[in-house]
Amino acid sequence: MDKNLTEYKSADIIIKDKKILDIGTNKAEKFSGKTIDASNMIAIPGLINAHTHAAMTLLRGYGSDNPLKVWLEEYIWPIENRFVSYEFVKDGTDIACYEMLRNGITCFVDMYFYEEAVAQRVKQSGMRAVLCTGILDFPSPGAKDSKESLEKTKDFIAKFKTDEQIYPCVGPHAPYTCSPETLEKAMEIAFEFDTLFHIHLSETEFEVEQIKDRYGATPIKHLDNIGILNDRILAAHVVHPTEEEINLMAEKDVKVAHCPESNLKLASGISPVPQMLKEGITVSIGTDGTASNDDLDIIGEISTAAKLHKGFWKDPTLLNAKQALLMATREGAKALRLEDKIGSIEKDKYADIVLIDKNTPHLQPMFDPYVQIVYSGKGLDVDTVIVGGNIVVKNKDVINIDKNYILDRASYWYKKITENT
Amino acid sequence: MDKNLTEYKSADIIIKDKKILDIGTNKAEKFSGKTIDASNMIAIPGLINAHTHAAMTLLRGYGSDNPLKVWLEEYIWPIENRFVSYEFVKDGTDIACYEMLRNGITCFVDMYFYEEAVAQRVKQSGMRAVLCTGILDFPSPGAKDSKESLEKTKDFIAKFKTDEQIYPCVGPHAPYTCSPETLEKAMEIAFEFDTLFHIHLSETEFEVEQIKDRYGATPIKHLDNIGILNDRILAAHVVHPTEEEINLMAEKDVKVAHCPESNLKLASGISPVPQMLKEGITVSIGTDGTASNDDLDIIGEISTAAKLHKGFWKDPTLLNAKQALLMATREGAKALRLEDKIGSIEKDKYADIVLIDKNTPHLQPMFDPYVQIVYSGKGLDVDTVIVGGNIVVKNKDVINIDKNYILDRASYWYKKITENT
Repeated sequence: MDKNLTEYKSADIIIKDKKILDIGTNKAEKFSGKTIDASNMIAIPGLINAHTHAAMTLLRGYGSDNPLKVWLEEYIWPIENRFVSYEFVKDGTDIACYEMLRNGITCFVDMYFYEEAVAQRVKQSGMRAVLCTGILDFPSPGAKDSKESLEKTKDFIAKFKTDEQIYPCVGPHAPYTCSPETLEKAMEIAFEFDTLFHIHLSETEFEVEQIKDRYGATPIKHLDNIGILNDRILAAHVVHPTEEEINLMAEKDVKVAHCPESNLKLASGISPVPQMLKEGITVSIGTDGTASNDDLDIIGEISTAAKLHKGFWKDPTLLNAKQALLMATREGAKALRLEDKIGSIEKDKYADIVLIDKNTPHLQPMFDPYVQIVYSGKGLDVDTVIVGGNIVVKNKDVINIDKNYILDRASYWYKKITENT
Repeated sequence: MDKNLTEYKSADIIIKDKKILDIGTNKAEKFSGKTIDASNMIAIPGLINAHTHAAMTLLRGYGSDNPLKVWLEEYIWPIENRFVSYEFVKDGTDIACYEMLRNGITCFVDMYFYEEAVAQRVKQSGMRAVLCTGILDFPSPGAKDSKESLEKTKDFIAKFKTDEQIYPCVGPHAPYTCSPETLEKAMEIAFEFDTLFHIHLSETEFEVEQIKDRYGATPIKHLDNIGILNDRILAAHVVHPTEEEINLMAEKDVKVAHCPESNLKLASGISPVPQMLKEGITVSIGTDGTASNDDLDIIGEISTAAKLHKGFWKDPTLLNAKQALLMATREGAKALRLEDKIGSIEKDKYADIVLIDKNTPHLQPMFDPYVQIVYSGKGLDVDTVIVGGNIVVKNKDVINIDKNYILDRASYWYKKITENT
């Protein structure tokens, strides 16, 4: 997935000190060390999930099929207020990391609460993650208001700023839950510490109307009006941008995390991704949380995206297989401001590599590997996952997370939630 | 998936002479025989794929991402004309049966060529299938015109009419490839032998325009005008019905095989399924062939359907998880005219049962099994498949099809096709 989309029919990938030292045919001869035989595999870069709320695995599918207002007000929010704690986030993140690694995801962007717990579990799992606490003007798990969240965000960034697995950032939840002042302060922190600024933006028509009512502008224009629309922003969803807003995002190099399955399931709508790509906007792909998706499978997500936009915009050439895989790899890395570190299998980048078992009937015959991965591939076809040179999934087994332990914890939370609601 | 959607928290299913003898709590005590311990499993009826072209596995993903005309005229049709043979269909069907069984599909509707080869391979695999030769007015693999196809159809039906695995039927390809005379003759055969009548109908806007030009009516109305719109019809796709046509289908009890992923990938459009369900039409679900999907995964397909219609019609309560699973089970059986034999786990129906391994992190915690299967489940979560009381998939291994053999055949056809095109 390098700039030329170089394809190697048969090649060696040399890994040293967490990074890719070299790649090409017959490169291994002059090196010694541990070898992985990947003859029946396709090697692709580790997949990047550009937007999720990992710990929400513990609310997987909860309150599905209800109107949005009922789902949020009668299911999700009351449960979050009662149960979300350091312990909840720790256990939920474990399940999420297991599922993501099993599906070939090596790096994800998380916005939730108790991000110290997330950071701890991510490091244990061997993954990478871009993490931020969701900043809201009202009380939220772990903080009484946005002032406290902003302070915690600073501390969190300071603590992990030089970590090689954790990339801390600033996460104001959305323009309808954060005042202009909160958003401005959040952006100041992003500049002060040189981080990403992650936000939900233009997700629903309701949000668009609400922001127009309050501030006299649509959400993206609103951010521009208060002077914070810039290239640090990774905006999740962006389902309802106006044409003017698309041009604005292109001009200011705002990045988008497209979450098609969540947008469909919550009936938010269908994002104009082909138009944004045409304008040169960096569009990455995210699963969103499992309460609104309900899985953490990026191959499934790009497959949905690639088909959805063809059907909805009535053009079968839109979002082809290469573009779809780019969203989950190199474009994803760019969206996370990590394009010099991950997103492709190239010299000097981290050795974050996924091996897909191609010796399976549903991937054969393979006329085009991109097409086969995107339209026929499954997250569960991933056989081996390497992050920073360490093997973290082998023969489809996730190495650093105890499956039975996390299933026990899922069972514990299931009982706790169902017995107390 | 019975009429009351009865859920058993813990139950025994008693199987005798291919059928379900009894079901309920502590029913096993008075019986002896082989036992399957399914304590960590969910038992659901065998899944039904209501529309596919099985042997097209050998063209999986071929020519993807091209405009429809280019895809058909430069990729699919020339390849089919050159390569489709008894041998091709035999090998392609093996791969399809493997993939379908692995994904919990126990019965499928196939329209292709050399259906004797399909029947032979289906019987070998242990599955059930409703099979028809695609009837076209022009030359097609195995027949020079529709007259020959109609004759072959009669012979095929006569041969398999009493088979317990193969349900032969009549398959005129579409109103734009079959004259009114051909359609009428096809319907006569369906009446004569009391079979299903399977047809592609109202798939693309182009088809609708073409039929309007030729016959002065939209496709479904056209079938009504020539006097053959009735309850034997299982219509694949139905993407562009008018309101009048929806009412007509409801009145005449025409069944629909919804193929959302194919309709998206080929940019055919999005079928008004919620409206058809509201009018009481039986809507089943199909994958279509793997050249336009590109997999044979019914859990994936109902997941797409359940999300797509919420997002497209902007209502998160549409096509809920139970309705989605019904499309793949009881409603599927009804669409195939097999509702007295399959589609639910009920006394006196065939023991076609799928066991899903629920002890996996991406299915836990499980607040609602329907929700979890539809939105988080994967075909690959299927652990055990039973058809007519016979175990055909065990511990995720397909028993009656040799994986290495079919991979070799895929490789053979890959070489043959790529070296000669």
